[in-house]
Amino acid sequence: MDIRDYMLKIGKAARLASVSIRRASTDQKNIALQAIGEQILGARKHLMLENEKDLEAGRAKGLSDALLDRLAFTDASFDAMVNGLEQVVQLQDPVGEISNLVRRPNGLQIGKMRTPIGVIGIIYESRPNVTIDAASLCLKSGNATILRGGSEAIHSNRALSECITRGLTQNSLHECVVQLVEHTDRDAVGELVKMDRYVDVIVLRGGKGLIERVAKEATIPLIKHLDGVCHVYIDEDADREKAISIAFNSKTQRYAVCNSMETLLVAAPIAPDVLPELANQYLKVGVELRGCDDTKKILSNICQIVIATEEDWGTEYLGPVLSVKVVKGIDCAIDHINEYGSNHTDTIVTENYSKGRRFIREVDSSSVLINASTRFADGFEYGLGAEIGISTDKLHARGPVGLEGLTSQKYIVFGDGQIRQ
Amino acid sequence: MDIRDYMLKIGKAARLASVSIRRASTDQKNIALQAIGEQILGARKHLMLENEKDLEAGRAKGLSDALLDRLAFTDASFDAMVNGLEQVVQLQDPVGEISNLVRRPNGLQIGKMRTPIGVIGIIYESRPNVTIDAASLCLKSGNATILRGGSEAIHSNRALSECITRGLTQNSLHECVVQLVEHTDRDAVGELVKMDRYVDVIVLRGGKGLIERVAKEATIPLIKHLDGVCHVYIDEDADREKAISIAFNSKTQRYAVCNSMETLLVAAPIAPDVLPELANQYLKVGVELRGCDDTKKILSNICQIVIATEEDWGTEYLGPVLSVKVVKGIDCAIDHINEYGSNHTDTIVTENYSKGRRFIREVDSSSVLINASTRFADGFEYGLGAEIGISTDKLHARGPVGLEGLTSQKYIVFGDGQIRQ
Repeated sequence: MDIRDYMLKIGKAARLASVSIRRASTDQKNIALQAIGEQILGARKHLMLENEKDLEAGRAKGLSDALLDRLAFTDASFDAMVNGLEQVVQLQDPVGEISNLVRRPNGLQIGKMRTPIGVIGIIYESRPNVTIDAASLCLKSGNATILRGGSEAIHSNRALSECITRGLTQNSLHECVVQLVEHTDRDAVGELVKMDRYVDVIVLRGGKGLIERVAKEATIPLIKHLDGVCHVYIDEDADREKAISIAFNSKTQRYAVCNSMETLLVAAPIAPDVLPELANQYLKVGVELRGCDDTKKILSNICQIVIATEEDWGTEYLGPVLSVKVVKGIDCAIDHINEYGSNHTDTIVTENYSKGRRFIREVDSSSVLINASTRFADGFEYGLGAEIGISTDKLHARGPVGLEGLTSQKYIVFGDGQIRQ
Repeated sequence: MDIRDYMLKIGKAARLASVSIRRASTDQKNIALQAIGEQILGARKHLMLENEKDLEAGRAKGLSDALLDRLAFTDASFDAMVNGLEQVVQLQDPVGEISNLVRRPNGLQIGKMRTPIGVIGIIYESRPNVTIDAASLCLKSGNATILRGGSEAIHSNRALSECITRGLTQNSLHECVVQLVEHTDRDAVGELVKMDRYVDVIVLRGGKGLIERVAKEATIPLIKHLDGVCHVYIDEDADREKAISIAFNSKTQRYAVCNSMETLLVAAPIAPDVLPELANQYLKVGVELRGCDDTKKILSNICQIVIATEEDWGTEYLGPVLSVKVVKGIDCAIDHINEYGSNHTDTIVTENYSKGRRFIREVDSSSVLINASTRFADGFEYGLGAEIGISTDKLHARGPVGLEGLTSQKYIVFGDGQIRQ
């Protein structure tokens, strides 16, 4: 079968399965999620063997240690998958939720009801855990799912997908509610993102290259997760201790994540007070600093720092590098963030009420924080229970995307025979 | 200047203007809206003259009377424009609205704040009133707007756009907050829908041809208004009088609108009771009936009806034609609607509680009603105050789109120095 036919077959089956999963009760969905967890525990040995095949192929292909690490199943990743399923079971089912019910003068009662979207395609790279995370969130929200993982994880993903299918069919759910694309050819992605008759939305998780390529080809709406060039702005009215601990934590708590800080902005009046202390802390853990002229001057007794280029201000280092800029005040900080940032996550540290309010209103990012580390911007920390990604788009879902982002809302109207005059 | 450069200039100016309008206060926006209304009243004579140019060109081009009607300014359309502006002034400003604020165990307070989207492109046909409706909604929601009306209304649109610009600049708002594309060439649309750097979303209002063409070309997310193949299902447990008046009103209250009924479904047990009476009413006002075999049989004493073809079930007549099908019961009705409908607006008439609930849950349309005419599915009737269209998409905005659909939501986080462990 050629790739187009193969993908069309998957698309049609998903559309069909979406009709049944849309109508499934919360109990049915939860029991299936638990059954998938049991299947994973039961298939542990088989999953390890299949994962080893991926690792072997990865080593032969010369994948980096970091990538091999992300690919490997461990006791911790098994626990995470099974716990993740249990957490999704605990989440409230959004489907059928009615809100904003108002009574109109003519007696009609009008509100909104949450519904599944229909068919969701998920395109992701390397980490096979995503297979379970994504499938469980889509299942709970009443959607059919087409999973397209990275080719380097195909054996692991196939084995996980078998666990999912058994969990579904054991509980009389349609076996195509979750399907894995087993074609590892790139063209399969090209077909998937153009099947607008069968797929309602594509969730994209992966590197910049993948996302840019898919965004160009797709005719289906995308929920995409682009880069996070996140900022902390230390205002002149900041509390010194909060400023230092938030700026340190936002950069160093983890490096290779989208919500870690890449650029630190410091108001000129407070810069000589906080920057030396911060620089010492950063240098101690091996963070390389690049800065503007003022930063270089202020830190000249501590270290020699490289002058940041125009490119630095827009770079997501995803590693132990930080660009630092001394700014005049909040106006310059907001302008800098809106110009160079990626509309992901930005923090102000200040004790000034009005400046906090302005920052929140005027910074055009998916998460804007006052006096808290940028690292909090994720679905678990926000209490969504789980997330399928962090959207930097402004339409539909913005910021961490949980169950709600995987649903739609329709209008519902309760009448007593009303007709329009 | 070639079309691409012309459009890029508009796009860049819009992006710039969006930064200032995003920060405008509710008062500033309302005063500008009122000033635009005054400009329109003051320019009435000029607007009439410019409109006459469009009408003359339209007559020369042989536009149909219906199209010329939609194009013509009348006293009523002036009133509608100015009243529309006043209504938008009265609407609550959604920008800055905070919702779902929760306190997390670590003391962080996390919620969502409504924000403008940024730059909105509106593509529409013939009716020049849309110029004012669309501009006012986008302005109130803090967005910059690029308007692309139909070439047949260019003189009227240009004159209206001048009123808007004067209303803006009089009140120190950026003159490019609302811009009209004066290039009437089709290529301008092609450029507009690909300027993803400068435009955040495109709202599409117009015929099927326009929408399909744009959907293919666009790289920007679309809010589109496709056809309305709307249904009324008369259940066997319907109240006879409600059923007849809702089915009659849904078809005949207005024909050429997307929320009028195109197919009537009737449960077999009640069909012999309601169909003859309804047929008499429809025939009296000149509605042509097409039906299934059972319908034909039931109505054989009243009239000879044409057998509906497979194509009829999916057709939006937008005129005095109705297809009628006798179905076994609610299951067949829901299946028929989900198969042949356009996910727009569907009504069940029933006194049965459980069937009403099932219909609401299982019909996958942007508006689902119980015991009310399909004609209620619009922004005014739903209390949104005004609408920019009725979306049949499932992402972002679904159903009538008012101010809320023209905004985004970002996460806001209030902390006291929290860092992540």
